[in-house]
Amino acid sequence: MWRTHNCGELRLEKVGEQVKLSGWVQRIRDKGSLLWIDLRDRYGTTQLFIEGTSASAELLEIVRSLGREYVIQVSGQVIERISKNPKMATGDIEIKAEEIKILNTSKVPPFTIEDDTDGGEELRMKYRYIDLRRNPVKNSIILRHQMMQYTREYLAGHDFLEIETPVLIKSTPEGARDFVVPSRMNPGEFYALPQSPQTFKQLLMVSGFDKYFQLVKCFRDEDLRADRQPEFTQIDCEMSFVTRDEILAAFEGLTKHVFRKARGVELEDFPLMAYDEAMRRYGSDKPDTRFGMEFIELNELAQGKGFNVFDQSELVAGICAPGCADYTRKQIDGLTEWVKRPQIGAKGLVYVKCNEDGTFKSSVDKFYTQEDLKNWADKAAARPGDLLLVLSGTIAETRKALNELRLYMGNELGLRSNDVFKPLWIVDFPLLEWDEETSRYHAMHHPFTSPREEDMHLLSTDPGKVKANAYDLVINGVEIGGGSIRIFDRQIQQSMFDALGFTKEEAEKQFGFLLNAFEYGAPPHGGIAFGFDRLCSMIGGTESIRDFIAFPKNNSGRDMMIDTPSQISTEQLEELSIFVKKPTE
Amino acid sequence: MWRTHNCGELRLEKVGEQVKLSGWVQRIRDKGSLLWIDLRDRYGTTQLFIEGTSASAELLEIVRSLGREYVIQVSGQVIERISKNPKMATGDIEIKAEEIKILNTSKVPPFTIEDDTDGGEELRMKYRYIDLRRNPVKNSIILRHQMMQYTREYLAGHDFLEIETPVLIKSTPEGARDFVVPSRMNPGEFYALPQSPQTFKQLLMVSGFDKYFQLVKCFRDEDLRADRQPEFTQIDCEMSFVTRDEILAAFEGLTKHVFRKARGVELEDFPLMAYDEAMRRYGSDKPDTRFGMEFIELNELAQGKGFNVFDQSELVAGICAPGCADYTRKQIDGLTEWVKRPQIGAKGLVYVKCNEDGTFKSSVDKFYTQEDLKNWADKAAARPGDLLLVLSGTIAETRKALNELRLYMGNELGLRSNDVFKPLWIVDFPLLEWDEETSRYHAMHHPFTSPREEDMHLLSTDPGKVKANAYDLVINGVEIGGGSIRIFDRQIQQSMFDALGFTKEEAEKQFGFLLNAFEYGAPPHGGIAFGFDRLCSMIGGTESIRDFIAFPKNNSGRDMMIDTPSQISTEQLEELSIFVKKPTE
Repeated sequence: MWRTHNCGELRLEKVGEQVKLSGWVQRIRDKGSLLWIDLRDRYGTTQLFIEGTSASAELLEIVRSLGREYVIQVSGQVIERISKNPKMATGDIEIKAEEIKILNTSKVPPFTIEDDTDGGEELRMKYRYIDLRRNPVKNSIILRHQMMQYTREYLAGHDFLEIETPVLIKSTPEGARDFVVPSRMNPGEFYALPQSPQTFKQLLMVSGFDKYFQLVKCFRDEDLRADRQPEFTQIDCEMSFVTRDEILAAFEGLTKHVFRKARGVELEDFPLMAYDEAMRRYGSDKPDTRFGMEFIELNELAQGKGFNVFDQSELVAGICAPGCADYTRKQIDGLTEWVKRPQIGAKGLVYVKCNEDGTFKSSVDKFYTQEDLKNWADKAAARPGDLLLVLSGTIAETRKALNELRLYMGNELGLRSNDVFKPLWIVDFPLLEWDEETSRYHAMHHPFTSPREEDMHLLSTDPGKVKANAYDLVINGVEIGGGSIRIFDRQIQQSMFDALGFTKEEAEKQFGFLLNAFEYGAPPHGGIAFGFDRLCSMIGGTESIRDFIAFPKNNSGRDMMIDTPSQISTEQLEELSIFVKKPTE
Repeated sequence: MWRTHNCGELRLEKVGEQVKLSGWVQRIRDKGSLLWIDLRDRYGTTQLFIEGTSASAELLEIVRSLGREYVIQVSGQVIERISKNPKMATGDIEIKAEEIKILNTSKVPPFTIEDDTDGGEELRMKYRYIDLRRNPVKNSIILRHQMMQYTREYLAGHDFLEIETPVLIKSTPEGARDFVVPSRMNPGEFYALPQSPQTFKQLLMVSGFDKYFQLVKCFRDEDLRADRQPEFTQIDCEMSFVTRDEILAAFEGLTKHVFRKARGVELEDFPLMAYDEAMRRYGSDKPDTRFGMEFIELNELAQGKGFNVFDQSELVAGICAPGCADYTRKQIDGLTEWVKRPQIGAKGLVYVKCNEDGTFKSSVDKFYTQEDLKNWADKAAARPGDLLLVLSGTIAETRKALNELRLYMGNELGLRSNDVFKPLWIVDFPLLEWDEETSRYHAMHHPFTSPREEDMHLLSTDPGKVKANAYDLVINGVEIGGGSIRIFDRQIQQSMFDALGFTKEEAEKQFGFLLNAFEYGAPPHGGIAFGFDRLCSMIGGTESIRDFIAFPKNNSGRDMMIDTPSQISTEQLEELSIFVKKPTE
């Protein structure tokens, strides 16, 4: 037996007991006649104590040969500490070491195993197995484990069946890029890894499994950003014979459950907001509703007064930054520079200071009277001391830039706390988006999303106007997940493929199995998927999803630790009937 | 709202209530003035009742237009049945239908949705979404769901952390063939899909997560047999600071837990048997211990009596088939033909009938006296009426063939009931196997398996003699899973790679990350993995694992339903920097 207890569990009531612990050497203090070792494992840290005067020479020699991260086994007696450490769970006791065995040595780790480590990102990725020993990363992985159990506990408890869908599936050009897998047994043919189990979960509904869920790996061969991984995990669900509101209720319940269990937070009921309204009020379909500063549309008040920039704009809109009227010239210039950065894309910034004395000072004073500006301030419900920040341009540009500015000001004013959670459902998305480049419609969600019942007749006549029966869960400005009521009628699915510019043959080739399935008694159904990595990082209170993935990949899709992707042997390529294109070809 | 209740839940106490149900039309009986519909969903079947005389013409028209597997919604009142059906959970009631809406039509299904269907395997694979509606398949998928919950409940309850390991990993030539995934961002380089998360779970131990588990998809590009799938699911576990017996106890506990919860069976404690003993007594490292008929080695008694075949054999061994002395000449000839089939490979079969009168009749009477044969019978503890069946040849051939014969006779004699479960642990496997073809050793388990402590010194001197600290769980002759205590010392791991004929460079290139990790405080650890598909089929009481996989592939690795693998576009190949080899090349 390697241990009788772990390093986190011994308390005062065990004093006098003979124990055996195993773990890692976190720290050694050698005061000559008195030595202490902090022994660490997953469960905590326990202090070992060696009295230099009474300990055997052999024991002392071993202790003095130890280094950080050595793995040792200690036998000894639990004793009460003279100076207790109330910050440590085991701080009332220590182990009087009688025997120490070195189970394994360790080189000096490339960075310190502390909450604030001295290791850079790249080094920590390469030595991920060491980084995982650090509390913040370790605790993130443990939180993820708990979230998985809570999620399944809730869903299985609500009659959802966990059903595994295949990983080796079929490539479809719709959506993002697929990862593919050459088939040795079928030369020239490939599997694809699923971007989501979408069609399979719909087939499960056709089969009659009316509530399905899975915590499932999905794959997208996209150019990576900081918060994207080529493989990621989804809470994936589908239900039959349900309305939109029943699905929302079920997953609002799930979300409340995991927040309560994992974080001790009771979420309030989630409001619904239509996509159009979210765009108008926040310029975004994932508004951060932890704070106000909603958009004020000023076209009526600001146009026709001789200010060309506004007059030629499709939209003039602003936000009211509370208590910022005292911003200096320099601060305002800074904001102006910020919104003009290419990522934000505004051409300029108009401000109106609502002075404490009831007067107004703006960057466009020569076009607008005090009364004009008062009208703006009134529409914005601005109070003395507030600052209006106004942008203009096309609707899309203005909303995009003003959304960014709103979030920026929210940060500046400390309105975006990680300890506050504001969820809401965004509903009634457009079904289709027009793509100028290819001159065709794309599905905003995916091609299986049902139009709203009341818009069904527009699908063939005015597809751009059709709203989808789709919904997203947004918390604190982050899209946690989304879903839709699906099409379950072969004819409507065919019309959808038509609207998306699929030929009959393409539709049949790629989704024939689903179209066929719809002819054998497909029930009305809908579903949802949550990004599990992101949900974990939100509940964990950090921005990066990487901490919540045991072995993440970097931005080039590379696992720095195992050094992959990598070349494979000629024999492997041969067996798979493929060639690699040489750089010269 | 699509339904107020499901089709399995209504009982007498609901009589008089107005309800709404949705589901599939299982059966229609039209007696002219009285009509009944069996409405089915995942939860059961409810009878709908329509009185031809009182129903509206509209309702009757709808009812008479229905076909099998139509999806309908019915509104009506729960009434007590006149002739109750005690075989149906809802058999006391029926619904007096007031309104029926057709939610979707259905073509006539290609096979009947009955427990015993008329559909062949291939047709059912193509229309898997319909096959999944049949009770035996549906119940298998539900059992699998339950098994997943029980497994996690047990492991999470025993402090195991569920940690996801990556799916896009590195190809290693050791073991079976990898599926590979070309990397678009790293032209000419590939990921591999994991055959198991072996190295990652060991790295998690180095990280200090001392109890890990995962229900994880694994992938092997092997030529498929009936019970193999290119992707399969494993209960994968690893523990630190544990002895072999602690691991066995933990997973004996898990196995008992899932048998108890899923099948209501209390398993007895699992005995341990050494590999050598299993081979001697059963000729197999996965013995079916539901029945005896153990091997009797007869070399001492049967050699040196002038029977050349036996005299030249490395092993003469038999089994005692109880009560089979009355086998006819024809039956014995049949057995002889059976063992001579190439798959079994015996050259012939010797029998000894132990007659009721105490005499013996054998096929080798001219070489052996009655006393000789009595000695054989005594060694076999045969009773009058039993039949000895004896094979000979090399040890390996004889054991293999006699094992097959034993299993065959077990089936013949009805000793292998699906309702009896006999688990045991096989331990002390050989570490290495000599491969004649490549003239080198292969790891019997995998290259990370630790030699037994007491055999460690043989690793460099007599590697073939070394026993591994490895173990398999066998139930009813089926290998459910296996594992080992791992090497956690870089030097020993290096010696193991040496014994396997790896060069230093190869070892470094393929497993350098693991060897490096062993230098930063790797704890003693070991683990185990269970084949989840197989465990489900064992508890479900059927041979085929396919019923327990929602969307299985056929023996060519093809998904018949979605028709994949399939060709991908030239643009995709281009982006991935690969060519497909034309058949002519």
